[in-house]
Amino acid sequence: MNLQDREKQLAARRAVEYIKDGNLVGIGTGTTVRFVIEELAKKVNEGLDINTIASSYKSEELLKQANIKVLKFKDQISDIYIDSADEVDNKLNMIKGGGGALLREKVLAYNSKYRVIAIDESKLKYRLGTFPLPIEVIPFSYLSVIKNIERIGAICELRKVTEKIYVTDNKNYIIDCKNLNFENTEELYKKLKYIPGVVEVGLFIGFIDTLLIGKEDKVEEISGVKITQ
Amino acid sequence: MNLQDREKQLAARRAVEYIKDGNLVGIGTGTTVRFVIEELAKKVNEGLDINTIASSYKSEELLKQANIKVLKFKDQISDIYIDSADEVDNKLNMIKGGGGALLREKVLAYNSKYRVIAIDESKLKYRLGTFPLPIEVIPFSYLSVIKNIERIGAICELRKVTEKIYVTDNKNYIIDCKNLNFENTEELYKKLKYIPGVVEVGLFIGFIDTLLIGKEDKVEEISGVKITQ
Repeated sequence: MNLQDREKQLAARRAVEYIKDGNLVGIGTGTTVRFVIEELAKKVNEGLDINTIASSYKSEELLKQANIKVLKFKDQISDIYIDSADEVDNKLNMIKGGGGALLREKVLAYNSKYRVIAIDESKLKYRLGTFPLPIEVIPFSYLSVIKNIERIGAICELRKVTEKIYVTDNKNYIIDCKNLNFENTEELYKKLKYIPGVVEVGLFIGFIDTLLIGKEDKVEEISGVKITQ
Repeated sequence: MNLQDREKQLAARRAVEYIKDGNLVGIGTGTTVRFVIEELAKKVNEGLDINTIASSYKSEELLKQANIKVLKFKDQISDIYIDSADEVDNKLNMIKGGGGALLREKVLAYNSKYRVIAIDESKLKYRLGTFPLPIEVIPFSYLSVIKNIERIGAICELRKVTEKIYVTDNKNYIIDCKNLNFENTEELYKKLKYIPGVVEVGLFIGFIDTLLIGKEDKVEEISGVKITQ
């Protein structure tokens, strides 16, 4: 296992310690979350009794394979939400959506009492934007949304997988945007979110209650702020 | 024809006068727009050469039946956008979406050089909110969105047609919301739009360049403001 994976695993293990017996747990998506599910499977096997809600079909599948109970999302408020991020800045803003599940992840994180984000150290940035910002859009409007985002200086790319347009679990498209100005994240979020045809922006402002950073053989723990978005 | 329909027809006829030869015309949806298309058909038959973009499958069908050219929407900026509204207040804010096409209507209105809204007098209100505000939502999250909107005091209803959930052209659901506070429309819009799972809100702020109001046998004309949203 390489250093990055080891750090992910360490942070994921620590994240799972936040889960208590009887909890309803929201589960994110991605490589770090795979480690979360792995660890969770062990604990459930040892007797931990929890229910989960998954942010993607992919995570739902992994949870079920691990014999962890998965509920259909209706309007539950989960006790805790566990996920990772593509980038986190020093104000605990995040970019998420590299795995394509940004909308359901934001819905579950928003409808949760407590949010724990586990990352490896490489994801920490002074300012966001090295990782392209994913934006979920309605297929009907994707070309006009690209034109409107490019108007504020971005370089946009429609996400594709082996030549085919990538389609989200909600049957929408994703546009990955580089060259955006993250100096004022609130303002940037508003600008993007207000473009008609945009469903959700992979910029998460104030969604971290606890950040866990895997750093070589340790885990650093930072307590965050409440949702301001 | 009743008074309301007569007023709609008068306003619609005036709206069509704004269209010039060679224009690319965005077309809204609804009963007033039916009169627009009727009038447009006559003019096209007399030689007016235009292209249109439709905000719904319904309007596209009507345009095609009337032998008016319809283009697929990509990223065009139309010369003019013509539509109606469910309510208009004295600051020229609108509620739209009674016909279910609010998202595509907002996309086309946003991507247009000039917007003409034609209404009958009954749609004019001192303050918005008698008409329930339509909100388009991702099916996955509709129950949690309802819960979150109800938290700010609204009474919500999932739109249904003969017992079946109404599905938009974008395969989403619509929630109709009563009892919202429209005193500060900007703030209300932001609150609703920022709830994860909301795709678009049927509140249109700053989307009217010219408002045409059918009043008995006259049309009143009000020039508006530029997009501020």
